[in-house]
Parts: sequence; structure tokens; C-alpha cells
Amino acid sequence: MAQVFLRRFFSFRRMFCTQRTSPLTMCEQEDGIRRIILNNPRKRNALSLAMLSSLQENLLSGVDDSDLRVIIISAQGPVFSSGHDLKELTSACGRDHHTTVFRVCSEVMTLIQDLPVPVIAMVNGVATAAGCQLVASCDIAVATERSSFATPGVNVGLFCSTPAVAIGRSVPRKVAMEMLLTGRALTAQEALLHGLVSAVVREERLEEETLAIARRICESSRPVVALGKAVFQRQMVQSRDAAYVTATTAMVDNLELRDGQEGIQAFLEKRRPLWSNSTEKVHD
Amino acid sequence: MAQVFLRRFFSFRRMFCTQRTSPLTMCEQEDGIRRIILNNPRKRNALSLAMLSSLQENLLSGVDDSDLRVIIISAQGPVFSSGHDLKELTSACGRDHHTTVFRVCSEVMTLIQDLPVPVIAMVNGVATAAGCQLVASCDIAVATERSSFATPGVNVGLFCSTPAVAIGRSVPRKVAMEMLLTGRALTAQEALLHGLVSAVVREERLEEETLAIARRICESSRPVVALGKAVFQRQMVQSRDAAYVTATTAMVDNLELRDGQEGIQAFLEKRRPLWSNSTEKVHD
Amino acid sequence: MAQVFLRRFFSFRRMFCTQRTSPLTMCEQEDGIRRIILNNPRKRNALSLAMLSSLQENLLSGVDDSDLRVIIISAQGPVFSSGHDLKELTSACGRDHHTTVFRVCSEVMTLIQDLPVPVIAMVNGVATAAGCQLVASCDIAVATERSSFATPGVNVGLFCSTPAVAIGRSVPRKVAMEMLLTGRALTAQEALLHGLVSAVVREERLEEETLAIARRICESSRPVVALGKAVFQRQMVQSRDAAYVTATTAMVDNLELRDGQEGIQAFLEKRRPLWSNSTEKVHD
Repeated sequence: MAQVFLRRFFSFRRMFCTQRTSPLTMCEQEDGIRRIILNNPRKRNALSLAMLSSLQENLLSGVDDSDLRVIIISAQGPVFSSGHDLKELTSACGRDHHTTVFRVCSEVMTLIQDLPVPVIAMVNGVATAAGCQLVASCDIAVATERSSFATPGVNVGLFCSTPAVAIGRSVPRKVAMEMLLTGRALTAQEALLHGLVSAVVREERLEEETLAIARRICESSRPVVALGKAVFQRQMVQSRDAAYVTATTAMVDNLELRDGQEGIQAFLEKRRPLWSNSTEKVHD
Repeated sequence: MAQVFLRRFFSFRRMFCTQRTSPLTMCEQEDGIRRIILNNPRKRNALSLAMLSSLQENLLSGVDDSDLRVIIISAQGPVFSSGHDLKELTSACGRDHHTTVFRVCSEVMTLIQDLPVPVIAMVNGVATAAGCQLVASCDIAVATERSSFATPGVNVGLFCSTPAVAIGRSVPRKVAMEMLLTGRALTAQEALLHGLVSAVVREERLEEETLAIARRICESSRPVVALGKAVFQRQMVQSRDAAYVTATTAMVDNLELRDGQEGIQAFLEKRRPLWSNSTEKVHD
Repeated sequence: MAQVFLRRFFSFRRMFCTQRTSPLTMCEQEDGIRRIILNNPRKRNALSLAMLSSLQENLLSGVDDSDLRVIIISAQGPVFSSGHDLKELTSACGRDHHTTVFRVCSEVMTLIQDLPVPVIAMVNGVATAAGCQLVASCDIAVATERSSFATPGVNVGLFCSTPAVAIGRSVPRKVAMEMLLTGRALTAQEALLHGLVSAVVREERLEEETLAIARRICESSRPVVALGKAVFQRQMVQSRDAAYVTATTAMVDNLELRDGQEGIQAFLEKRRPLWSNSTEKVHD
């Protein structure tokens, strides 16, 4: 089943892609699902500046196109991503280059959370340092039993401070601290237990389960999802009372969307909703 | 055992209640324990504006009376609550009405956290959307194995943005996001794992276990609990150092309460404390 | 194995210690690992003002000495710590004294998080109230199966408001609230599940497992760990975007440390790093 899909997948029409100019990532889209695949397994899918730029381009390209509904990020090979390319972090590269690397990395990680469509990490292997940060930054993460998650920068003299921004906001404080201070890897089950991943599945079920979630998202209205995701990020950094003001306005705005009303009408009429995916309001 | 209690319960003296004017909720109080029961099972205990108002009245009525020590919210029928009444959210009702619905809902949810007494959700069934928000907003939640928790608004074109305020502050970010983006329900065990509920029990034990917690709360001093609950909410949105300033003052104030000193004296004298439940200070 | 270590441990060279002037804590250091042992088992290792001061002195003494790499806090006897000494909290002691007790306690708890070296709680027994706060305040906590964790202050009329600062930032909100409102103890497994402790081990493995973590930390660079720990605390109270600015600067600064570059060079040259443990920058 997974193989069948994989075969079909590689025959997908290619669009919005940087594949020709950059083989570091592959990007394909069909039926609303964009798949971005980290494609440098020999370098353990290191998040070099080139890889980050390629990923950023894949994420941003045509992102406002209503055809795009959800993004899945996965990786070729046994390592999901090993994090930054340490060759780019030697003193020879200089402080300015280092700053650029971390700035672009932070941009990609926050972009994932700020995109109008959900982003799913599909993990089958080791995710370390900025690779683990990438998983933590996605909205949903599905991982195989053999996957593991670590922030071992401290072992090479570079504390995973930027990964800690995403990981510290995903798992309990003590879990994050032990990962960061010792470099110990979480098993997939530990990652599930502590909220770093959304689901753990058998390897042969990874594609199927991840696509089931993606397809479920495709069945909802794009502007409704976009509004909801944006408001979630916004209200979560506010105090509770301010958050309720933000969210109350969002609910009322949501109801003025065509699809807000269509969904409710369909529910009341016991029929399937027909989404317009339009951002127009019902009332002028 | 549960049946015995249930029979006794329905013979409780009725007070602070809206039952006669509004059959949407039942409200009864005995031995310091107020029980509010969502009572519209045919409508899946939808949180209509009338239901929310009834609930608000039940929560607020005589809340400063020292007889009240703890509130249990439960529901008649197989659905704890299905959330908002979608009939109140059609465009025909208008933006002002929508605003009122979400404002009152947010008031009820924050009221629960701001009340001077603990509020326990006793859940035996499905809790969705604002129904799930209600569970997330309570201080403690006891659920049966058959209970489940979901925010499926996205499926009817209305993203659960207001429920997300409470749920996003209760469970890890990825758990909240998957619930919100896909509508997938958490089982009771998943809800326990991720901190959305405090305990999962067998159905026949639900009343007994919930009442045991309520009775345990009744054994403590009302003003001490009120102070502690209020300070918890206040300090949790502060930075750590500001939180310690807030909490240090609270501890010193707590010690000046009659019951603060009575508790310590009783402990040192190896006897049971005799609470005054008075908010007077020991010194002048 | 544990016994062998224990015997060796008690023959450690004693330094930075208050043992002679205050037998309330024992403090020993060898091979970069400082061990502080709460040593008043007859008083259930109550965190009296004297105990807190002794602990504070043990934590602070020579803390900038590069010989110190990690601190382990443990306790003699079956109780890790029962929290404040209630005799110091009677009205006879007066408001000023109460204020001092909670101020010093908060100082110790925040000091643990602000120290430049990681602090590990090694727990074999009951940790209640401020004793539970102490565990929650450590960066890492290893506990035996027989350990338990509670904030039962409400039962003696003194709500655990200061412990709630640390515990509310460690475990999900509902878990914290149930602990605080009912005084119910978490088992070691529940504490692990909810992130209050980092690991649960068999009693005979406690020393060995804790020391393995400590030794792992000793293998990393002290200034790298110090930078990382400080930045973690700082960014976690910021908004995500501000946190990334903080962390990006930290990464670049980290790379300018001698050990930042040594670690990367060693990795690229496939050799073990040789830490200078110097806070000097590579570039002038």
C-alpha cells in the first residue's frame, strides 16, 4: 500500500518546486497536498543554508494559492535531519555568516507556524538539533517507532539554544532540559508521551497514516483553517483574558466567512458542506 | 452504590437554583457541594445562550456564601456537551448575536477559573467544541473510560478558536493543534495522558470518585482554598520572578488568616484542625 | 555497586562546605560533581530557614570555579523533604519572619535555575510542599519508584502558593491544580508521565543512574552549558519571535567561544574534543 502510493507519488505533476535548480529538496503537489522531501541523505539531510533556503522556497511558493491545503515534510534515508551543517559554523565562516544561518533557520521554523496551511512532519529516523526543532515546529508530527529525537549540540560545544525555542514550547520543561543538557535522545514513544509528536505508527503504515491526516485536512475549508491556525498562534502568547478577546473576534469573523455559514447550514440540513474556499464575507 | 447516591441526590434540598425558571440546568447543593447538571440531553446539552446563562447563574448564585465549598458540573445523557447551538450561529442571527454568544461563553469559562471555590467536571460521554472547552476550563476533571474529547468545529466550517484558548493552555501544543486541525477525538486515556482530565475511572465509580475529591476539598478551609486558587491563576501568567513575589505575599497573607494559624497549630498539636472559614486576619 | 560508590563518596575531600558550622546539609565535591545532601532526616529534612541558608551557601560557594560542573541534591532518610518547618510559620514568629522564610526559599529555588551549572534532584522518598518545589526547580530529577510528590499545604491551612510557581511551570495545569486543591500525592510514575521528574529508576540503581547523567554533563564544556542554561530560562518567558532573537544571538556567541569552535573542529576531524572550559572568545 505504502509502496503503491510511493510509486504514484513520484509520478506527481511537479509544481512550485526548486527541484531542478536545487536537488536538496524535492517538492511535489497533488490534490491539495504538497510534499516536501529533504533529499540529501548522504549528508544526513543537514540543514545547510542551501537546504534551509530550498525548504523556505518550497514552503512559500504559491502559498496563497487555494489549491494548496496542507504540507507534509519528510526525508530520504535513515536520518530525518541531523540539524545544521557544522562546516558552515567554523570560525573561518565568520560571525556574519553564522548570524545568517541562524536567522534563516529561525525564519523557516517560524514560517512553518505562520503559514496559512497546516504543516505535518512525517518522520522515519533520527531527528537531531535543528532537525528536531523542525519536527517541533510543525503543527502535527507522525513518527515511526524507530524514530528518535535529540538535541545533542552540547556534545559538540554548541548548545541547542535555537532548537530549545521550539522544543521548550512543545514538551515539559524538565524533558526539554534533560534533552538539552545531556543530549539524550527521546524514543518515539517518549516523544509521543511528552507531546513532541502527535502519533507513532509502524513503519509500513507511516505514509498511509500521515496521508489520512492530510486528506482529512483537505476536507475542511482552507480559509477557516487559515484563520484558526493564525489565531491559535496569536492567542497562545496572550494572557487568558486577552486571548478570549482575540478568539471571540475570530469566531465572529469565522461566521461571516462564506464557508462558516455553509458549514453550519450543511450541518443543520444534514448534508455534506460544499466549501467555496473563498475569503469573502457573507455580509458586505 | 452510585445508584444509592443518585437517589439520595435527587432528594437534595434545592437552593440557588434556576431549575424552575429554566429546566436547562439542574442545580442542587448539600454539605458544601453544589451540583450543576446540564439537563438538555435531547439537544446533546448544547451550550445555547440560554444554557450558558443558566450555567452562569448557577455558578454565581450565592458564590460568596461560606456554605458553598466546591462545584461539580455533570450532564444528563450520553453527551456531556456538544458545544454551541449552531442554530444560534446562522447569519440570520447576525453579528451582534454571535458576539453575545461568544462573549457570554468566554465569561462562563473564565468565571469557572475565577470562582473562589474549585470546580470539578464529572464527564461521562462525549465533550466537543465548547463542551470540551468547559472540561478544560474546570480545575479538576474526572472522566469515564467511554468519554471522549474533541474540537471538530473545523468540520462544520467554524474553527474552535475560543475552545483553543482553554485547551491550548491545558495540553501540549501539538496535541491541541491536531485536535483543532483534524477534529480527531481524544480517548479518555489520551486526555489523561495529556493533562486534559485529572482522572479516568470506570463508569460505575464516577460518582463515588468525584464525590471523594469534592469531600476532600470540603475538609479544607474555604478562604485558604479561595486565596490559593486566585493566586495560582494570577501568578501563572507572570514571569517566574514576578510570580514568586506574588506567591510570597500570598503565603504571608495566608498565614495571617485564622485558618492559616489554626491549621499549623493543629498540625503541631497533632489534632484535627477546626476551620473558622473566616476571612478575618489573626493580627489586629 | 551503589554501596561501593556510597562508601567512596563519604571519603570524598570536603570543600565549599558548611558541614562543620551546619550539619543540616552535607556538601562534597569530586570530579566536577558537587553533592549536597539534606541531612536532617529526623525532621523529615524540613526546609527551615537554617536549612535553606545552608543549601543556599552550598549552591553558591565557589560556583564560578571551573572545577564545578554539576550539582546533585539528595537527602538522608526516607523523606526527601517535607517542606517548610511549620514551627517557623506560627503567628508568634511574626509577619516579618514569615516574609523572610518565603523570600529566602524563593531565592534558593530561583538560584537553582539561575546557576551556571545544571542541578539534578536525586529523590528517594516523599517530597512535599517546598520539598516538591525543590524537585520541580531542579533542571533534572531522577526518582525511585517509591518516591512521591505532593503539595498538601491546603490540609494544614496553608495553600502551597510558592511551590505552585515551580510546579505550575512543570506539569499540566490540571495536574497542578488537583495536587494543590486536594493534596493528593503523585506516584513516581505519575510524576514521570507529567514531566515533574526526568526518570524513574529502581532504588538500587538510583546513585548509578544519577551519576551517569552527572558524568555525561561533566563531559561537555562548562561555559557552553552555562550559556545554554541561562538562555533557556531567558527565552522561555519571551514571545516566540523575541525568543528566536535571543537564541540566535546566543548561538552566534556560543560559536565564538573557544569550546564552540573546538567542538566543531573535533567533530569534523572525528576526534574527541578537548575543552578549555574558558569563557574567552576566539575572535578578539
